[in-house]
Amino acid sequence: MDEFELIDRFFRPLCTDVAENDIGIGDDASVLSVPSGVRIVVTTDTHVESVHFPNGAEPYDLGFRSCTTSLSDLAAMGATARWASLALTMPDPTSAWLEGFAAGAAAALKLCSASLVGGDTTRGPLTITWNIIGVVPVGETLLRSGATPGDGIYVSGTLGSAAAALALSLIGSGDRTEDEGALRDRYWSPRPRFELSRRLRPLASACIDISDGLIADLTHLARSSQCGAEVDCALVPMARELIALAGAERGLQLALGGGDDYELCFTVPPEHESNLSDISAKAEVAVTRIGRMVEELGVRVIDDCDREIMIDVAGYRHFE
Amino acid sequence: MDEFELIDRFFRPLCTDVAENDIGIGDDASVLSVPSGVRIVVTTDTHVESVHFPNGAEPYDLGFRSCTTSLSDLAAMGATARWASLALTMPDPTSAWLEGFAAGAAAALKLCSASLVGGDTTRGPLTITWNIIGVVPVGETLLRSGATPGDGIYVSGTLGSAAAALALSLIGSGDRTEDEGALRDRYWSPRPRFELSRRLRPLASACIDISDGLIADLTHLARSSQCGAEVDCALVPMARELIALAGAERGLQLALGGGDDYELCFTVPPEHESNLSDISAKAEVAVTRIGRMVEELGVRVIDDCDREIMIDVAGYRHFE
Repeated sequence: MDEFELIDRFFRPLCTDVAENDIGIGDDASVLSVPSGVRIVVTTDTHVESVHFPNGAEPYDLGFRSCTTSLSDLAAMGATARWASLALTMPDPTSAWLEGFAAGAAAALKLCSASLVGGDTTRGPLTITWNIIGVVPVGETLLRSGATPGDGIYVSGTLGSAAAALALSLIGSGDRTEDEGALRDRYWSPRPRFELSRRLRPLASACIDISDGLIADLTHLARSSQCGAEVDCALVPMARELIALAGAERGLQLALGGGDDYELCFTVPPEHESNLSDISAKAEVAVTRIGRMVEELGVRVIDDCDREIMIDVAGYRHFE
Repeated sequence: MDEFELIDRFFRPLCTDVAENDIGIGDDASVLSVPSGVRIVVTTDTHVESVHFPNGAEPYDLGFRSCTTSLSDLAAMGATARWASLALTMPDPTSAWLEGFAAGAAAALKLCSASLVGGDTTRGPLTITWNIIGVVPVGETLLRSGATPGDGIYVSGTLGSAAAALALSLIGSGDRTEDEGALRDRYWSPRPRFELSRRLRPLASACIDISDGLIADLTHLARSSQCGAEVDCALVPMARELIALAGAERGLQLALGGGDDYELCFTVPPEHESNLSDISAKAEVAVTRIGRMVEELGVRVIDDCDREIMIDVAGYRHFE
């Protein structure tokens, strides 16, 4: 099987829903019609074996997670995902591996009706790069930079479960209790919050997705917005399974400092906060107020007794 | 130096010319305004150390060549390059390496006034993926599929020099004669033919860039156009240095079968052929008629005595 057959067999089926006269896979490049009144939103993410995921990871999981984590960047901007390109470098793939990977990628793209439109398949150490293009109506992009002091800080879903799956060595295959399986799923199956972010566009002042960890990503948001943030740690939402398996204290550290949740962290001016319960219900995802933006720069985390507590994880950085 | 500092120091300077209110590097994704009346054209290419380029290659050369070969895909579509994303996976880069690579990439992007707008830097085996977005006026895209029997087949520039640099082990550093240096340059410094392809948009019936080799890529074009091609090998343009160093016979094999030239191969209906000398002069690149499209499927190469000759290279394919 050479690269042309490989593309035809496993990846061309993911090229769906390309507009008439547009070109997906098959020429020197893809050609795509952009509707009027939108800007395009572009994100690029690379996943390297044994750096971003363990050797021998399940191909379906890899296909799904590598794609959804990129999709999450588009959700964080309020964008709708449209077109994906996949650069896949592999040592010596089997048909079973390719089938699993492609099925995972297809499931991820289907979540948001996006189409694979191109990419490159090459031989080498296993490395996956997604480049995904979305669209957002002009003037409605959710940026990191729009928060002002007094805005409420919110997160979607619960935090810490994905980091706990990593910390408790649950991401490999094998027998799992129900609670362990729930944490494992949170690591491998992040859900980009498109429905929520679309509804937040007219209300939220700033937004970011939590990939590096709540405090690290909120720090990015606060810095871009040139203000600070105060988080009440008692309000940070955690899954029951996280508390059950990691304990309350470690669970909180993971929820504040651990990455990989791909939930949204966003800020909402006081006059719009009353709309959030309705939006949460319509988007079918919990949103929780965890603090507020303040003038003083930096991110502070406050305990029950209003004392500042220290977080021991500051987000993963390459090349440190 | 962590990844944020690395991006700030070496790659943010390549983010130039982003329109007002657009966002390049710095949020979860880039946000870009697409002019009306165009479609976007997207290409993705990966370069893996010791597969696509030798260990220890000069970083400037790598930055320039990895980017220009992707740009060439856009030129082959008649598109204008606008925005580039770079996914760069590196084992343990030094400042000198990063500086060289970024300078090469900057020079490549400057050729077509494109801007770096995003990407990802990760640790791992050296792998470079460019994703580049261009624009082309609606209805003016140059496809592989528009050729019909009777169209003339043309190539830009000369062929075989880049493949000869590889075959003669000239792509490494070291002392070179002037002729050797000329071949080496053709490998490392492909010139995407934007000016030519822009002028070909109203005339050419099909177009492809020659990355896999003239015959391999012309086969793609002919197959997409559902017709055949006949190439007169006496007409295939070769550089003086190629003949001098490889000899006429081997030179021809390299010109027909070797890849990496990134010249354009395009077809022009008879009624437009008389315009080509003017276009060639304005675009400041030679174009040479090497044959014509025919009804019979497949690509035939004919020698001086009208006998079909065999080509022993059919284009590089991964995973064979």
